[in-house]
Amino acid sequence: MKPFISQYQRYKEIVDQQLRSCIMKSEPRSLYRPVRYVLSGGGKRIRPLLVLLACEAVGGSTRQAQHAAVAIEILHNFTLVHDDIMDNASSRRGRATVHTKWDTNIAILVGDELVALAYRELLKTRSPYIARVADIFTEGVVEVCEGQAYDKEFETRKHVSLDQYLLMIGKKTGKMVSVASEMGAVIGGGSVSEIRALKSYGTSIGRAFQIQDDLLDVVADEKEFGKTIGGDIVEGKKTFLLIEAYARSRGVDRKLLLSVITGGGTVRKNIPLIREIYERCGVIDLAKQTIARNIAGANEQLSRLEKSGARDMLFWFSQMLLNRNF
Amino acid sequence: MKPFISQYQRYKEIVDQQLRSCIMKSEPRSLYRPVRYVLSGGGKRIRPLLVLLACEAVGGSTRQAQHAAVAIEILHNFTLVHDDIMDNASSRRGRATVHTKWDTNIAILVGDELVALAYRELLKTRSPYIARVADIFTEGVVEVCEGQAYDKEFETRKHVSLDQYLLMIGKKTGKMVSVASEMGAVIGGGSVSEIRALKSYGTSIGRAFQIQDDLLDVVADEKEFGKTIGGDIVEGKKTFLLIEAYARSRGVDRKLLLSVITGGGTVRKNIPLIREIYERCGVIDLAKQTIARNIAGANEQLSRLEKSGARDMLFWFSQMLLNRNF
Repeated sequence: MKPFISQYQRYKEIVDQQLRSCIMKSEPRSLYRPVRYVLSGGGKRIRPLLVLLACEAVGGSTRQAQHAAVAIEILHNFTLVHDDIMDNASSRRGRATVHTKWDTNIAILVGDELVALAYRELLKTRSPYIARVADIFTEGVVEVCEGQAYDKEFETRKHVSLDQYLLMIGKKTGKMVSVASEMGAVIGGGSVSEIRALKSYGTSIGRAFQIQDDLLDVVADEKEFGKTIGGDIVEGKKTFLLIEAYARSRGVDRKLLLSVITGGGTVRKNIPLIREIYERCGVIDLAKQTIARNIAGANEQLSRLEKSGARDMLFWFSQMLLNRNF
Repeated sequence: MKPFISQYQRYKEIVDQQLRSCIMKSEPRSLYRPVRYVLSGGGKRIRPLLVLLACEAVGGSTRQAQHAAVAIEILHNFTLVHDDIMDNASSRRGRATVHTKWDTNIAILVGDELVALAYRELLKTRSPYIARVADIFTEGVVEVCEGQAYDKEFETRKHVSLDQYLLMIGKKTGKMVSVASEMGAVIGGGSVSEIRALKSYGTSIGRAFQIQDDLLDVVADEKEFGKTIGGDIVEGKKTFLLIEAYARSRGVDRKLLLSVITGGGTVRKNIPLIREIYERCGVIDLAKQTIARNIAGANEQLSRLEKSGARDMLFWFSQMLLNRNF
C-alpha cells in the first residue's frame, strides 16, 4: 500500500503545482486575487487523480491527460464557490469562503471565471479526441447544475425518495467523478469497452463516495473526520440515512425524524437518539452494504482492463475509499 | 436597405427558433423554467447575426455556423443574468430579472447552466476547426469576466481614465462582438487575413456600439430609445462622456461632475445642466467622432474581403449602428 500513497502524493503535488501556475495574470485584482485564493486552498484532488490513472490504465501517459486533470479540479472549485453562496457556508477547508472573505458579487464572478479557466485548461489538451473530451466535460457541467438544482429543491420538499436522492447525488457529485475517469480513458486512446468500463468505475466510485460521506457524518471518528459529528442531522440535511430511516420507521421514531425533516434540523442533544434509530432500523447497515456493492461493482469494471500499475492503483483507490475514516 | 432589414429579421427568427428548441428538458423545473424564460426574452441577436454573416462573407454557409451563433447568444444571456444580480437590476427587456422573479440562488445557477448550454451548443458545430473555435469562445468568456470585474472596480474608484474605460468596455462588451465575427470567419474556412479582418471588424463595431450606448443615454429620442434619457447620469455611471468631460472641465462644472462621480449619481433635474457641460466641453462631438472613426475602421476591414452579399450586409450593419437611435 505504501508506494501507492506516495504516488498519490506525487500526483497531488503535480496538480497543486499546475493549479498555482495556470494563473499568470494579476489584473483585475478584484478577480484574480480570490481566484488564486481558491486554487491554492488545497483539497484531496481525487478527480484529477482519476483522470491521470484512467489515462494510464488504457496505455496513455499522465502527460497527455494533465491539462484535463487540472481542468476538472478547477471546475470542481467553481462548484464549491457557487454552492457555498447558495448554502450560506462561511468556511471551507478551514478557511473563509469567497463570499465571506470578499462578497457575493465577487464570488459569483470568481465562479464564472473558474469555469472559463477550466475550459481554457482543458482545451490545451493535444489529442485527436479533444472534441469528444470537451463534450464529456460539458455534459458534466450541465449535470452538476441540475444536481445542485435538485438539491435545493429537495431542501424545501417534505418527501424525497431514495431514488430521487440517488438521482440528485449522481448528478451533483457522481457525474464529475465519472467524467474524470471517462475523459482520462478517452485521452489515453482507450477502446470503446475500456472507456465504458472506466466511466462505469467512476459512476460507482462517485456514488460510494457520497454515501460514505453521509455515513461518516454519523459514525466517523471526529478527530480524523475533521468535521463535527452529526452536522447533517443538526442541519436536517436529507441524507441517504435520514431519507431511508424515515421511510422505514414508525411511531415516535417516525415523528422525531419528520420533525428533523420539516423543521430543518434538530438540536445537538438529539444526535445520539437519531443515530440509535438509524441503527435500529438498519439504515447504517444498508448504507454500508450499498457502499460495498458499489465498490465491488467498480472493481469488477477494473477487472475488464489489462493489468497495469495504474489499474492496481485504481483498485487501491477504491479500497481506500471503502476504508476511509476522514 | 429594405432587403437587409428583412434578411436580418429572417436570421433573427432562425436564432429565436433555435433558442426555443435547444432546451428539451423540463426537469429540474427550478432550473429549466427560468432558463426558458431567459432564452425566450428576446433581444437584438446582434452577436449571432455577426457569426452567420462572417461565416458567409468568407464563403461558408450559415448552416455551418448556426450552432456557434446560438451558443454566443446563450452565453450573452448568461452574462446578463449574472450582471443583473451584481447590478441589483430589477428589470431587463421590459420583464423582471431572474433574481427578482425567482431568487439570487436560482439566478446564479441559471447563469451557470447557460454557460454549460452555450458550450453544448457550440460543440455541436461540425468543423475541422472546432478546437480553435472553442479556444476563441473560451477567451471570450475569460475576458467578459475580467471586464465585469473592472466595471465593478471602477464603480467605487474616483479616477478612471478614458483608456481604462476603453479597456474595460473592450473586455466587457467588445470582446464578445469580435469573438462572434472571428468564430464565424474560422468556421467558414476563412484565410488568415480574412479572419484577422473580420475579428478586427468586430472589435471596432463593438467599441462603436458601446460608445453609442453611452451617447444615446444623453441625446436619444426617449420614445425610440425605450429607456429614460439621462439614466446613466442619475446613476453616476462612469461613461465615456462623464469620464472625458470630468478630465476636460474646470471650476463649477468640474465640481458638479465630481459630485456625480463620487456621490454615485445626481438628481434628475441636473440632467440638462450636465448635458450642457458635455456639449460645451466637446465630449458629445468627441464621442460622435470616435464612433465614426471606429465604424470607418470596421468598414475598411470589410473592404479587404471579396465582394459578396454577406459583406454588403455587414456594411449595412455598421451603417445601421452609426445611425441607430434606439
